[in-house]
Amino acid sequence: MIPVVSFVGRSNVGKTTVLEKVVGELKSRGHRLAVIKHDSHGFEIDQPGKDSWRLTKAGSDVVILSSTDRVAMISKPAAEPSLDRLIPLAADEVDIIITEGFKTADKPKIEVFRAAVSDRLLTAGKGLVALVTDKHFDIDVPQFAFDDTCGIANFIEENYIRRPRERDISLCVNGNDIGMKPFVKDALIRTITGLVSSLRGTGNARSVKIEIHIPPSSGE
Amino acid sequence: MIPVVSFVGRSNVGKTTVLEKVVGELKSRGHRLAVIKHDSHGFEIDQPGKDSWRLTKAGSDVVILSSTDRVAMISKPAAEPSLDRLIPLAADEVDIIITEGFKTADKPKIEVFRAAVSDRLLTAGKGLVALVTDKHFDIDVPQFAFDDTCGIANFIEENYIRRPRERDISLCVNGNDIGMKPFVKDALIRTITGLVSSLRGTGNARSVKIEIHIPPSSGE
Repeated sequence: MIPVVSFVGRSNVGKTTVLEKVVGELKSRGHRLAVIKHDSHGFEIDQPGKDSWRLTKAGSDVVILSSTDRVAMISKPAAEPSLDRLIPLAADEVDIIITEGFKTADKPKIEVFRAAVSDRLLTAGKGLVALVTDKHFDIDVPQFAFDDTCGIANFIEENYIRRPRERDISLCVNGNDIGMKPFVKDALIRTITGLVSSLRGTGNARSVKIEIHIPPSSGE
Repeated sequence: MIPVVSFVGRSNVGKTTVLEKVVGELKSRGHRLAVIKHDSHGFEIDQPGKDSWRLTKAGSDVVILSSTDRVAMISKPAAEPSLDRLIPLAADEVDIIITEGFKTADKPKIEVFRAAVSDRLLTAGKGLVALVTDKHFDIDVPQFAFDDTCGIANFIEENYIRRPRERDISLCVNGNDIGMKPFVKDALIRTITGLVSSLRGTGNARSVKIEIHIPPSSGE
């Protein structure tokens, strides 16, 4: 439900540097944003001897640190999480999520391209919405120069952030997203908000989250 | 819905060290677990020059890194999150959550006590379920010595991890948890699982998550 835009491209084209500038520009315009970066080479974040390091080393699968102004989480998931499973970690806090990588996920993609690195696009046709490139392509998407941080930020702002979020519902059963046709979504939204509105403390609901757990033994 | 147990106690009684041993013990018994640590003094986790540091510095309110075997998140929330808002960050991945700190949260508490640090308990009566202590107290909760890692792990395992999770539902409207009486919970679980079960791909539901967003303009 939160807008997500992905910066994709081959290794060493400078995705993180473009992202760094675009994030700075969007931040200066007052948006709250999250970056989700896929790092196939792994990453270092813990510092030996610190509490997060000690607790992870002791065997904690997830360590979360919370202070007045920062929250950090380090987890060793049982399997590599999909982008759709990472999005909820940030969604409550921000107006837009920008990813680096995740080229196979079903999100609008801005490809970062350098002629010195490759002669072909990575994403032609598959959800490509814009290019950041040092070479012009004869295709019908906006193309930005590497130093056009403002243009890239405008494009994201106009097409994604400013679009008012629509009334929507997501449904996840046993960890899998269940797709629904619009009329099914609408029926479910009306039924559930109707049910919920009869409870105390639920007036003027803008967001509703429900989690149900049914143990295997309950036979339902 | 996931079991949560809190280790609380005054500063410098050795909470993290106790936790480190108990986590190791529970892990060696095959449990998946998370630690959520409240750190009123703040913490360091980023390393200057690394991607997470660059993107946070550029202004990203949340940075998530994902590789094949690890996920890390660093966020600057608008307000200090309550324990109830941190729990969902870990809940899908683990069998139990152990916290360090959060003494005002409504969770069962194991107080870590050292006679050299104080002469009074911090939590007497307020959700206290056990003590790790170097002095015996005349109160009716199990009391463990600092080196009785096995005893503490047994206590947590028997009382929290092994208890089969019950059928349950949580409801959050506009970010606030809505408490419900058991019969209301039951009615809502039956109604919603009934609705959901008519959709394709929802057979044998053990967990159901629903999120609804209603924009201010929709007038409902």
